[in-house]
Amino acid sequence: MKSVSLADISKFIRQQGIANDIDGDPEIAVSAVNTLEDAQPGEISFLSNPRYHRMLPETRASAVIVTRQTDAPDRLALVRTDDPYAAVAAAIVRVHGYRKHPRWGIDVRTTIAASARIGENANIGPWVSIAVHAEIGDNATIYPGCYIGDHVTIGHHVTLFPNVTIYDRTQIGHRVTIHAGTSIGQDGLGYAPRDGRWIKIPQVGQIIIDDDVEIGAGCAFDRATLGATRIGRGSKFSDLVVIGHGAKIGQDCMVVGQVGIAGSAVIGDHVTLAGQVGVGGHLTIGDGARIGAQSGVVSSLDGGVEYQGSPAVPSPDFRRQSAAIQKLPELVQRIRDLERELTELRQRMDNGERPGR
Amino acid sequence: MKSVSLADISKFIRQQGIANDIDGDPEIAVSAVNTLEDAQPGEISFLSNPRYHRMLPETRASAVIVTRQTDAPDRLALVRTDDPYAAVAAAIVRVHGYRKHPRWGIDVRTTIAASARIGENANIGPWVSIAVHAEIGDNATIYPGCYIGDHVTIGHHVTLFPNVTIYDRTQIGHRVTIHAGTSIGQDGLGYAPRDGRWIKIPQVGQIIIDDDVEIGAGCAFDRATLGATRIGRGSKFSDLVVIGHGAKIGQDCMVVGQVGIAGSAVIGDHVTLAGQVGVGGHLTIGDGARIGAQSGVVSSLDGGVEYQGSPAVPSPDFRRQSAAIQKLPELVQRIRDLERELTELRQRMDNGERPGR
Amino acid sequence: MKSVSLADISKFIRQQGIANDIDGDPEIAVSAVNTLEDAQPGEISFLSNPRYHRMLPETRASAVIVTRQTDAPDRLALVRTDDPYAAVAAAIVRVHGYRKHPRWGIDVRTTIAASARIGENANIGPWVSIAVHAEIGDNATIYPGCYIGDHVTIGHHVTLFPNVTIYDRTQIGHRVTIHAGTSIGQDGLGYAPRDGRWIKIPQVGQIIIDDDVEIGAGCAFDRATLGATRIGRGSKFSDLVVIGHGAKIGQDCMVVGQVGIAGSAVIGDHVTLAGQVGVGGHLTIGDGARIGAQSGVVSSLDGGVEYQGSPAVPSPDFRRQSAAIQKLPELVQRIRDLERELTELRQRMDNGERPGR
Repeated sequence: MKSVSLADISKFIRQQGIANDIDGDPEIAVSAVNTLEDAQPGEISFLSNPRYHRMLPETRASAVIVTRQTDAPDRLALVRTDDPYAAVAAAIVRVHGYRKHPRWGIDVRTTIAASARIGENANIGPWVSIAVHAEIGDNATIYPGCYIGDHVTIGHHVTLFPNVTIYDRTQIGHRVTIHAGTSIGQDGLGYAPRDGRWIKIPQVGQIIIDDDVEIGAGCAFDRATLGATRIGRGSKFSDLVVIGHGAKIGQDCMVVGQVGIAGSAVIGDHVTLAGQVGVGGHLTIGDGARIGAQSGVVSSLDGGVEYQGSPAVPSPDFRRQSAAIQKLPELVQRIRDLERELTELRQRMDNGERPGR
Repeated sequence: MKSVSLADISKFIRQQGIANDIDGDPEIAVSAVNTLEDAQPGEISFLSNPRYHRMLPETRASAVIVTRQTDAPDRLALVRTDDPYAAVAAAIVRVHGYRKHPRWGIDVRTTIAASARIGENANIGPWVSIAVHAEIGDNATIYPGCYIGDHVTIGHHVTLFPNVTIYDRTQIGHRVTIHAGTSIGQDGLGYAPRDGRWIKIPQVGQIIIDDDVEIGAGCAFDRATLGATRIGRGSKFSDLVVIGHGAKIGQDCMVVGQVGIAGSAVIGDHVTLAGQVGVGGHLTIGDGARIGAQSGVVSSLDGGVEYQGSPAVPSPDFRRQSAAIQKLPELVQRIRDLERELTELRQRMDNGERPGR
Repeated sequence: MKSVSLADISKFIRQQGIANDIDGDPEIAVSAVNTLEDAQPGEISFLSNPRYHRMLPETRASAVIVTRQTDAPDRLALVRTDDPYAAVAAAIVRVHGYRKHPRWGIDVRTTIAASARIGENANIGPWVSIAVHAEIGDNATIYPGCYIGDHVTIGHHVTLFPNVTIYDRTQIGHRVTIHAGTSIGQDGLGYAPRDGRWIKIPQVGQIIIDDDVEIGAGCAFDRATLGATRIGRGSKFSDLVVIGHGAKIGQDCMVVGQVGIAGSAVIGDHVTLAGQVGVGGHLTIGDGARIGAQSGVVSSLDGGVEYQGSPAVPSPDFRRQSAAIQKLPELVQRIRDLERELTELRQRMDNGERPGR
């Protein structure tokens, strides 16, 4: 692996808008970025979370990105910055770059409808199916086993990992990445009851995914019954996330693994949903809200606030409730004591005890 | 897109058993059903959930399906009915119909074992694998990338979307639909401990899916260790649902996204399980029970009742508990006050205070 | 199906280290193992969970594996043992054996890079893709639709069911089984914020899966940002489990369906995580801990202990809390009563009531 000087890394980090200074030899050759635990000589690591500070004396890394205040052994070359996490992200880009995909061109074992249009410089693996009237932009990378339904439109610089399914009439913007096994645009759970049975409602809507979205593995994003499910620009989703029919997700949201968002929910911009959160149907969540792991959102929530719990409440309320629940068994005892003491006191009065005896 | 007159739509809705009356021009030409928000002139919309009533004055739709009591602007043609949701479902069927699938016939790039039997009018995409002794009924639609294991039997009019896996010896009834990436019949989590390690128990049972079942994307339904996992007629499942080995699901159930049902659980008919519900192993849930989102079922539950919470309790109990939890921090303060006041009172007695002083 | 004598089954169970005695005719011919409910004459069943004891008089099985104390009808041949569950596991192996896979050899419709190395006796179905520099051991079974990325290494006797995706540079040990649709080694949710947008951090780490691991259907195990996500020897995972980037899972763990483990969590050996459990990032869970269903782990937990709840606490504490929550509405009433009685008592004193009236 080609190596890069520490000075080069520092300069690249600065170019990303992150001020930093080298404390040590700027000419050190760096071949990889690694964790404090796994780093080898010639590699650079980072310390962002203080709980890992104890690993600093033991790391075999040659250089470490740290905060301006961090105490570190003299033998380590340091890159000091106010934001080590952002800095190491930049360092990884500089040293490693992004994943290189296999080059297939357009594999002959792919089936592409005559009416489909594929942009320039396409990189499409074997056993991909592209149905009638689909349109795919330039520089697409589509791994083996993907299915692209009829009338799907996909922008430029899109990457679909293996075995992704895109249902008919889905619209996907530019620079979207979708990981393996994810399914986009299937029917939501739309049925009308009749005589004790469920009659399927044709799901004639679609799903529209805006630019710069990344979706993890094994997700399932439903099309709308009518109109469109919408995923806003720049939002990021981890694995096994479910989006119900007709939900609208804003821009630059961060959605962690196993989150489920029910149909017709409306999520604002810059919303964070931590792991396993559930959001009920037809609710709204305001811009910048942050919902803690496993929370259950059962009513609409204002933006800019942190929530937790099932049902989700503002985090300070949740912490007070949690603390009180932890003390509940003790409270039960205290109530029992109060009842006993009160009875004693009443008996003393009823018995005509002379006060002060 | 071909259009249909409002009179035609009204008549079709009536034919589905849903009484309705037109309030406006019956000759309006309708080209699509759409949401109040997205509808264009020449389209029909609906208002079922009162919270969207404020959208009625602003919709560009030409006609709207509403309740008999709804106030609506004069310019809108109305279809008035007691059940707008059921009516719009029928309208969608009349105006749009159900999804049309691509036509592959039996693609030559499919591998079908000589001993497999395929019914009439099969529509099987490329890169489908059908193993020995599998039997598939008439009018099957099987999208690319599906795998059908040995000795699988599948009824008539079944649709498998892309990349579905059906393990060996699975039985599937008529008119079953399975969405992309779902896996049916894999081994459950069956191991016996020996010397601190887990020894795999061969999972020699199977899974039987009855008629008219629809299963969402990314689901995983396990085969039984012995005997059969069973999915009852007409039950509907959303995305990313897990069914454990040997579970029995009744008829006409509605199972929302990310529900998990553990092994050997027995679910009755017409049961609703909302999003992210978990059901413990070996439990029973009676007919018609409705379990709220994120609930955890840890004991068997009677039918006909609504439950909520983790552990799940009848919903009125859950609401009382929730309300009390919200007030817990206040209760703690009230207990503290009681203790202080009681101490004061006792001291007054102990101090020989003359009553009435 | 070939049958086996009850004596043979008893002997095989004993050979697995499980003492047992036949109570009945050892020459009975057994053709299958089945549930008490579904068993036919000529089949053997078992009774381990006492709640199914009522089924014993009604079973049509010819023989049943039971505890040494179980009362059973005279007509049934019995295998008596201290551990019927372990014994039936052995009986299933003796009577049925493990699943036989289709035999493809190396299907010609597979694409294998010239630089990839495949071991002896490979069994690789059609539409499998094996990228450059991948290495696969002997006796591999790879079902149709699997994708094996570049520089992946896989040990001997590995089984990949249909449509599994293994991302580049993943390492997998010997005797590993991965069920349909699972994805291993995709990027985790790694982004750095800049100017209100999310900048992707290249995920340059990998994932290493040790020997004897089994992974269910539809799972998603992320590669590390740096270093490696690690799955310890012998650990077993059910369906739709998510493992975040950089997490370390110990040996012989049992992870039930829909569990989510966040990035950089460290799980010990012999840990049990029941269904839908969530584990927060950067936490540790000690060896032998057992976490109840739907629990949310929000702080590091000691080993050897059973936990429950969200947030997870030791199970006895959880049970006390749960019992207290069930009684909360009653507690509110008791506090109200106390307040009223205390007020009355104070008034009696304030009013100068003569004690002993």
